[in-house]
Amino acid sequence: MTVLKNDRFLRALLKQPVDLTPVWMMRQAGRYLPEYRASRAKAGDFMGLMQNPQFACEVTMQPLDRYPQLDAAILFSDILTIPDAMGLGLYFETGEGPRFKKPVRTLADIEALPIPDPEKDLGYVMDAVRTIRSELNGRVPLIGFAGSPWTLATYMVEGGSSKDFRKSKALLYDNPQAMHLLLDKLTQSVTAYLNGQIRAGAQAVQIFDTWGGNLSAAAYQEFSLAYMQKIANGLIREHDGRQVPIILFTKNGGQWLESIAATGVDALGLDWTTEMSDARRRVGDQVALQGNMDPTVLYAQPTAIRAEVARILASYGQGSGHVFNLGHGITPEVDPAHAGAFIEAVHELSAQYHG
Amino acid sequence: MTVLKNDRFLRALLKQPVDLTPVWMMRQAGRYLPEYRASRAKAGDFMGLMQNPQFACEVTMQPLDRYPQLDAAILFSDILTIPDAMGLGLYFETGEGPRFKKPVRTLADIEALPIPDPEKDLGYVMDAVRTIRSELNGRVPLIGFAGSPWTLATYMVEGGSSKDFRKSKALLYDNPQAMHLLLDKLTQSVTAYLNGQIRAGAQAVQIFDTWGGNLSAAAYQEFSLAYMQKIANGLIREHDGRQVPIILFTKNGGQWLESIAATGVDALGLDWTTEMSDARRRVGDQVALQGNMDPTVLYAQPTAIRAEVARILASYGQGSGHVFNLGHGITPEVDPAHAGAFIEAVHELSAQYHG
Repeated sequence: MTVLKNDRFLRALLKQPVDLTPVWMMRQAGRYLPEYRASRAKAGDFMGLMQNPQFACEVTMQPLDRYPQLDAAILFSDILTIPDAMGLGLYFETGEGPRFKKPVRTLADIEALPIPDPEKDLGYVMDAVRTIRSELNGRVPLIGFAGSPWTLATYMVEGGSSKDFRKSKALLYDNPQAMHLLLDKLTQSVTAYLNGQIRAGAQAVQIFDTWGGNLSAAAYQEFSLAYMQKIANGLIREHDGRQVPIILFTKNGGQWLESIAATGVDALGLDWTTEMSDARRRVGDQVALQGNMDPTVLYAQPTAIRAEVARILASYGQGSGHVFNLGHGITPEVDPAHAGAFIEAVHELSAQYHG
Repeated sequence: MTVLKNDRFLRALLKQPVDLTPVWMMRQAGRYLPEYRASRAKAGDFMGLMQNPQFACEVTMQPLDRYPQLDAAILFSDILTIPDAMGLGLYFETGEGPRFKKPVRTLADIEALPIPDPEKDLGYVMDAVRTIRSELNGRVPLIGFAGSPWTLATYMVEGGSSKDFRKSKALLYDNPQAMHLLLDKLTQSVTAYLNGQIRAGAQAVQIFDTWGGNLSAAAYQEFSLAYMQKIANGLIREHDGRQVPIILFTKNGGQWLESIAATGVDALGLDWTTEMSDARRRVGDQVALQGNMDPTVLYAQPTAIRAEVARILASYGQGSGHVFNLGHGITPEVDPAHAGAFIEAVHELSAQYHG
């Protein structure tokens, strides 16, 4: 086992003392980086990039090379690998986002879905994890991830992205049993997939519940959180002699932090609509908090970015338990120099809150 | 003064006893109705429909004629009438939503903006209010409305709709003084406009803060709520011998209900992510609550719609102070029969909670 040279991120997730607030960015390996765009051009397209462990490793490393202060790497992949492995036929149309050749619409469609085996059916992801861990050589920890069952279900039923989730919500309300069967199969799949990533070398995992926050409070509990609870219960929590923290991020879930924290995960991801000090007061004794600068602040000048970082650090306050991040993924048009200003500001301004 | 035959809506907003929970739907005069589409075709386009008081009256009445159980009418108009009257040149491109010919980008642009006079510069809206009041003849109360200053500012700076509010947020963070000047001018304009509507006959007013919920908690307080507070302070609260209730609706504002209620408005609009019982526990002693069924539930079958109405009524519980509504506007593809099932269910299932 390689010695981890920088474990600030893992320590903060477990609320152990740190010297500085660790920082990473959701979608840090992404289109805002010219080196990423070059790799994607080499690979041909997004699918070619993602399904090739060498390319996935290459782009995972790019933000770490550009921004040496980043405290974590995140596996370069896509949340829709599981539905693809279930046979839905993932593809990307330019400017249209992800699409499926065979969306799921009926109970019969759902009954026919297999539970993918991580090594057999998603081997390219497991290989990417192993390749990246080897390339990282202990530099920073590697985060694995998956989409939440509800989030995956929306894409599978809609056949792609959606503004109002019309088909998936109509299925939920008209035929809750069918939706529960779909979510149950996804829960089994996500649990096996994340455990596969942990065995392959992921040192923390994040569940992206991108669309749970678009449900009513009642439907969120029944159709999103209940299944993430099952996943949390089924995950490997210690591997290679070290705890494997779980981060749960429900975008737009700020009203439900208490019930999310009650799942027993280690950390909650917060979007920018939640005030860090409020979140800490509400659930900070149970979980670490990750977030939460509005990614759009990166379109402002470095002085403004720095002021917003300072405000959020002060809002969390003294002590460990905060992993700095954006409140959602970094967007393609951001100037990489602005992302750099963000990362530097976190380290520079956070020392006063530690030690 | 005409006697109001059905004042259930106004009474519920003031938490006075009612026999049934009143109901209306945001965007109830809209594209889901074939009679609306026919009127729009007659008028030529949306601008022709909205700027003609006779047409505006015609489409305002359509949902009342189709659904006799509706407890309120809402002025047919658009939130962007104010920026248009400021000289930005509102137009609609098919499938593109609202656009401005002259977006606002610099401090000089903002300094040059006039404060529109309601009767002189927005006379077509005031005339529409008078025409509708006359046509209603006391059947149900008429709701007037305006967009919140922050919501209007986003359209004015972006030049139209936006996914991430990049330009408006960059202005907010890079040049807060300029943004404050814009918001201050909009606050003066909205206050005068809503007071104009009240004098012309609007019996309640709603402020639509459609995009405040996309700000960070801190920015929401400073750049959206503070200005709605000023509007609330400046509105006529009694007219023609009757109180004029104010409803404030910040979409995605569920985390901030306490501070919204503290503005002293009469009612809060809730989107579907807030549990009605939680909202009542948090702020129900101060304000009435309006909402909050997920509009997408209308894509499900009437049985499911009825079950969701029952769940929300039970969540609010016994007594007055609840105006039933959707959590956002009704969408164009909804079957009008489903909207009817929704409205009927509210009256049929709510008697048990009153009297």
